[in-house]
Amino acid sequence: MAAPTELLPASGFFESGEHLFPVRVYYEDTDLSGVVYHANFLRYMERARSDMLRVAGIDQRAALEEGLGNYAVVEVDIRYRAPARLDDALTVRSHVTAVSPARCVIAQSVQRGETLLTQGSVTVAFVDPAGRPRRQPAQWVERFRSLAPGIA
Amino acid sequence: MAAPTELLPASGFFESGEHLFPVRVYYEDTDLSGVVYHANFLRYMERARSDMLRVAGIDQRAALEEGLGNYAVVEVDIRYRAPARLDDALTVRSHVTAVSPARCVIAQSVQRGETLLTQGSVTVAFVDPAGRPRRQPAQWVERFRSLAPGIA
Amino acid sequence: MAAPTELLPASGFFESGEHLFPVRVYYEDTDLSGVVYHANFLRYMERARSDMLRVAGIDQRAALEEGLGNYAVVEVDIRYRAPARLDDALTVRSHVTAVSPARCVIAQSVQRGETLLTQGSVTVAFVDPAGRPRRQPAQWVERFRSLAPGIA
Amino acid sequence: MAAPTELLPASGFFESGEHLFPVRVYYEDTDLSGVVYHANFLRYMERARSDMLRVAGIDQRAALEEGLGNYAVVEVDIRYRAPARLDDALTVRSHVTAVSPARCVIAQSVQRGETLLTQGSVTVAFVDPAGRPRRQPAQWVERFRSLAPGIA
Repeated sequence: MAAPTELLPASGFFESGEHLFPVRVYYEDTDLSGVVYHANFLRYMERARSDMLRVAGIDQRAALEEGLGNYAVVEVDIRYRAPARLDDALTVRSHVTAVSPARCVIAQSVQRGETLLTQGSVTVAFVDPAGRPRRQPAQWVERFRSLAPGIA
Repeated sequence: MAAPTELLPASGFFESGEHLFPVRVYYEDTDLSGVVYHANFLRYMERARSDMLRVAGIDQRAALEEGLGNYAVVEVDIRYRAPARLDDALTVRSHVTAVSPARCVIAQSVQRGETLLTQGSVTVAFVDPAGRPRRQPAQWVERFRSLAPGIA
Repeated sequence: MAAPTELLPASGFFESGEHLFPVRVYYEDTDLSGVVYHANFLRYMERARSDMLRVAGIDQRAALEEGLGNYAVVEVDIRYRAPARLDDALTVRSHVTAVSPARCVIAQSVQRGETLLTQGSVTVAFVDPAGRPRRQPAQWVERFRSLAPGIA
Repeated sequence: MAAPTELLPASGFFESGEHLFPVRVYYEDTDLSGVVYHANFLRYMERARSDMLRVAGIDQRAALEEGLGNYAVVEVDIRYRAPARLDDALTVRSHVTAVSPARCVIAQSVQRGETLLTQGSVTVAFVDPAGRPRRQPAQWVERFRSLAPGIA
């Protein structure tokens, strides 16, 4: 039996080709300096990319279980502008900026209200179960193009 | 400016004295055995306890910043019944079962639909900024008693 | 080419049937309360159990890759006595206290010098790649018995 | 009482102005794709930077506790070349490439034997307890310059 609707984990949505996703800051995310540990912003950004796939109708778990493959992160460039704190409600904004046969580039930022906290770019490559690069499913590429018109 | 309502992180609610909280499983939560890493269920349970405080109107960040103190986990007993997998939508159920001047005992379980995944008990103690035990705010105790009638 | 000897990650050793393993506390381990986040002690304890297998000559990665199976945690009972802080050098003590055909019970504690920080018991069950319980390799059981004489 | 010498966590050392630091891959570091989760390489790199400070005689915990301040990560650029797997013994190489009054740039790579796994650059800024940029202690800058001659 599915969970009652009102109990589902928060999901994001697309707005003008951009995916928006909400994140709450918990104890586990912070470090003794009192703010979110820098590497944990990469976890927030990965959650948003996973949600983006889900919202786009792409089932990455099925792709993994069927031996099709998965996305591996090959490049991250990130700037930290302002810290996030316990209980903050954040928004991760993701925008697919380029798609090639085997790769996607996603521009991502994390905001608290109107305040920009981090800004970056993530490149992912599709790989088979042995970790070798392979073409991403053509259907997925079409999805990205339809959701984010103007992709390079 | 606050995030638009529809973008807020999922929050839980109380139902018959029990707090229900939704969690989604992401890549970061799993390990190479293909399922959620055991220690990460403790993170899910902590998120649910933090949400329980928020829903109860208790601001733990303010308590920390004002130098009042925070809850420290002093005991965890947990049984793992079934694994959780990528993309699973889980529910954490939390029930305050005992409150003493300085401690709370919370019974917590994690379910996927009707399937019980983990079941446990967590004891937290209120401590001052130096880590010394102190009485939890009387107002908080009243809150717990009003939300979960029948507490020991 | 292997790393130079002096650069190898720290490994533990057995002493009178008990396994000792060193851990350093880093930023990632702490939370905003200034001490190690409770769930991270379970990570320290898992590292120690992995090292115990390695020192005992058991290759858990090979067992996973050959489709033999892996240990899944089925029960954890842990008491937190004192906090750990950034830069602390800790020792995890592990002692196999019971072995049945499919399970092991390991008593584990974490200390800083002579100070006991946490104390607990972890039960692991051997499972096949589909997560179903199966007998652990007989050779492994013999190893445990030879390393910790007096096991139940 | 201190831990016996042979039980200390592994520490790194400087060699020709470069800091080398060993890391072991554990269950907690991997995800269901079978290899180390991308964000966890940032944790390895942070451990190496913390060890680098320790080896250089800089006590970052004391600096935090005395209210002097701490380093905050302001920029990370990282390329992932090859995956790391359970039980791998890795080496993190760190080299301070630029020091300004308030910032350091550190070039870091992670290798397994001779194989390059990740390569990147991390910029850290010294901040006071309120998170405001401040000059890093002059003594620390001298240390960096003496350990890595030729710093910009």
